[in-house]
Amino acid sequence: MLATVIHAARDIRVEEVPRPQLSTGRDAIVRVVAACVCGSDLWPYRGVTPTERPHRIGHEFVGVVEEVGGDVENVRAGDFVIAPFYVCDGTCVNCRNGVSTSCLNGGWWGSDVREDGFADGGQGEFVRVPLADGTLAVVPGPVEPEEIPGLLTLSDVMGTGHHAAVSAGVRPGDSVAVVGDGAVGLCAVIAAKRLGATTIIAMSRHPERQALAREFGATHIVAERGEEGIATVRELTGGIGADRVLECVGTKESMDQALRSTRPGGMVGYVGVPNGGPELPVRTMFGSNVGVNGGVAPVRGYIEELLPDVRSGAIRPGLVFDLELPLREAADAYAAMDERRATKVLLRP
Amino acid sequence: MLATVIHAARDIRVEEVPRPQLSTGRDAIVRVVAACVCGSDLWPYRGVTPTERPHRIGHEFVGVVEEVGGDVENVRAGDFVIAPFYVCDGTCVNCRNGVSTSCLNGGWWGSDVREDGFADGGQGEFVRVPLADGTLAVVPGPVEPEEIPGLLTLSDVMGTGHHAAVSAGVRPGDSVAVVGDGAVGLCAVIAAKRLGATTIIAMSRHPERQALAREFGATHIVAERGEEGIATVRELTGGIGADRVLECVGTKESMDQALRSTRPGGMVGYVGVPNGGPELPVRTMFGSNVGVNGGVAPVRGYIEELLPDVRSGAIRPGLVFDLELPLREAADAYAAMDERRATKVLLRP
Repeated sequence: MLATVIHAARDIRVEEVPRPQLSTGRDAIVRVVAACVCGSDLWPYRGVTPTERPHRIGHEFVGVVEEVGGDVENVRAGDFVIAPFYVCDGTCVNCRNGVSTSCLNGGWWGSDVREDGFADGGQGEFVRVPLADGTLAVVPGPVEPEEIPGLLTLSDVMGTGHHAAVSAGVRPGDSVAVVGDGAVGLCAVIAAKRLGATTIIAMSRHPERQALAREFGATHIVAERGEEGIATVRELTGGIGADRVLECVGTKESMDQALRSTRPGGMVGYVGVPNGGPELPVRTMFGSNVGVNGGVAPVRGYIEELLPDVRSGAIRPGLVFDLELPLREAADAYAAMDERRATKVLLRP
Repeated sequence: MLATVIHAARDIRVEEVPRPQLSTGRDAIVRVVAACVCGSDLWPYRGVTPTERPHRIGHEFVGVVEEVGGDVENVRAGDFVIAPFYVCDGTCVNCRNGVSTSCLNGGWWGSDVREDGFADGGQGEFVRVPLADGTLAVVPGPVEPEEIPGLLTLSDVMGTGHHAAVSAGVRPGDSVAVVGDGAVGLCAVIAAKRLGATTIIAMSRHPERQALAREFGATHIVAERGEEGIATVRELTGGIGADRVLECVGTKESMDQALRSTRPGGMVGYVGVPNGGPELPVRTMFGSNVGVNGGVAPVRGYIEELLPDVRSGAIRPGLVFDLELPLREAADAYAAMDERRATKVLLRP
């Protein structure tokens, strides 16, 4: 079968690899219907994080279950499933606490450090899912082709945007600013609106993304950054800053923008993977009682909550996909996102 | 009248100073019944923060209103009042948002940088309160002498411990660890129990403070620090860490202890004034979804909530005072706290 393998920075290849086999009794083989490229996939692509040896890549996919191990109970062959961007058992104490990204038995797609094999990436024709019962969310059929992009966002970006809003404690009537206009930031706009925010400020400099943010519920667009951006957010929020700010980038600059755009006593919900390890300025936070909450989003736990709104069309996160390519052209997909020709690329095996 | 003045590190003097006068119409003169020394007063005392010129010191006091300005509506001569450790108007947007420590018109005791004079400290015979309506909380009379210590804690330490618990989101049934066994840490134990925590771990190495923590509701005492302390907290919390951790010290070490004693998805509530500017390790926080929330505690807004429990004896924060001295001996009070001979000293003018 075909699967995407990263060999080094800017060296993405779609290669013939062995088709995965069931091995633990708790696993499942999924035929991938659609996958996509994540902003965080660009880090090894750009060499920001090193690629020491070739390995599978990709961690967002939806598909149809081909076969399941003997101990699998929640998933059956033929089910249409959404896989979150990580593997979890759904039963450990951290999963029960709603933090399935800290699953005691979980792991990450595309790594092969564990004996029981978390080796497959999501950008391939088939994927072995090590802990099928905890990891996979079944979408009751039938699934129409036009639903695929929206469902695929539940594997990462929609759930991650939602996590930013939940972590920040967005409530009805709040003012919310969103830092970052990538797919996650745009989904954070959806999430803020869905949770009842009435002022939603999208910080974006790209006309197409501004338009999509408006379509998703943004009431204001702020194109400025830095001091100017902070001043504009304050102007829009009675002079004090937004009640909640959703940080969806992960750089020192974006976190600084977020912290200083938040009103005293407000909260930053952050989901941008901290790139280069920015540290938080605790004295500034202390003086104004601005909290910081969030992290790697436990999206598996949000699928059941968000799925009905995606299927009904009440929210339309699938619109973040602005390019679709066959899996064989995965290298082009990476290049398109790297060069900002695309916000989010959908891959079809 | 007499008031405490800091001249330099370890140079605390009780001096004759002019008695304050009403000046703005919105102010009040309060005769101080009891004041106290705060852990944060030790910073200038120890020279950690420089004292560039002599100024009044002290920011926690209760007393009786002597006279009020013509525009004061909520406070009358003869009222017994609690002053929080800062001045606030109670009406600006930040006050209305519950963050009166960020009052747009407020200020700090013992500073004289503002034209309208926030010069008085709390450790004196009389204090001019610049914004009396917003700042002072009236205690309906009569007030019995034995109530004074408990009421005095509402000016800072009890409200600050409560803020740690509120910021961390303590809920019934939670496991809570408290880092710091000073007056604030001990009050945080009270607050955690009051909010329904069922496992309360006090981190303390001092037998007297351990005993008081137990009396206040601690279910476990952990004397170890660092890796050992973290391991013990995890043992007591099902292997994962406490749901909420209350950081009541303010050093890099104490914040590290707090962050690593928190379970994935948990929250650190912090009120320890960051000493020396520790920065928060955002990558660690991100990976485990541990949030950080808190800051300089808006205690004014908590007085009405906590006062009934203090007066009924349901909570007994006044027990944190283990030494009482006349105001004239304020220098000894500082020395006793500096040398850890006392947890918290009450001063009587």
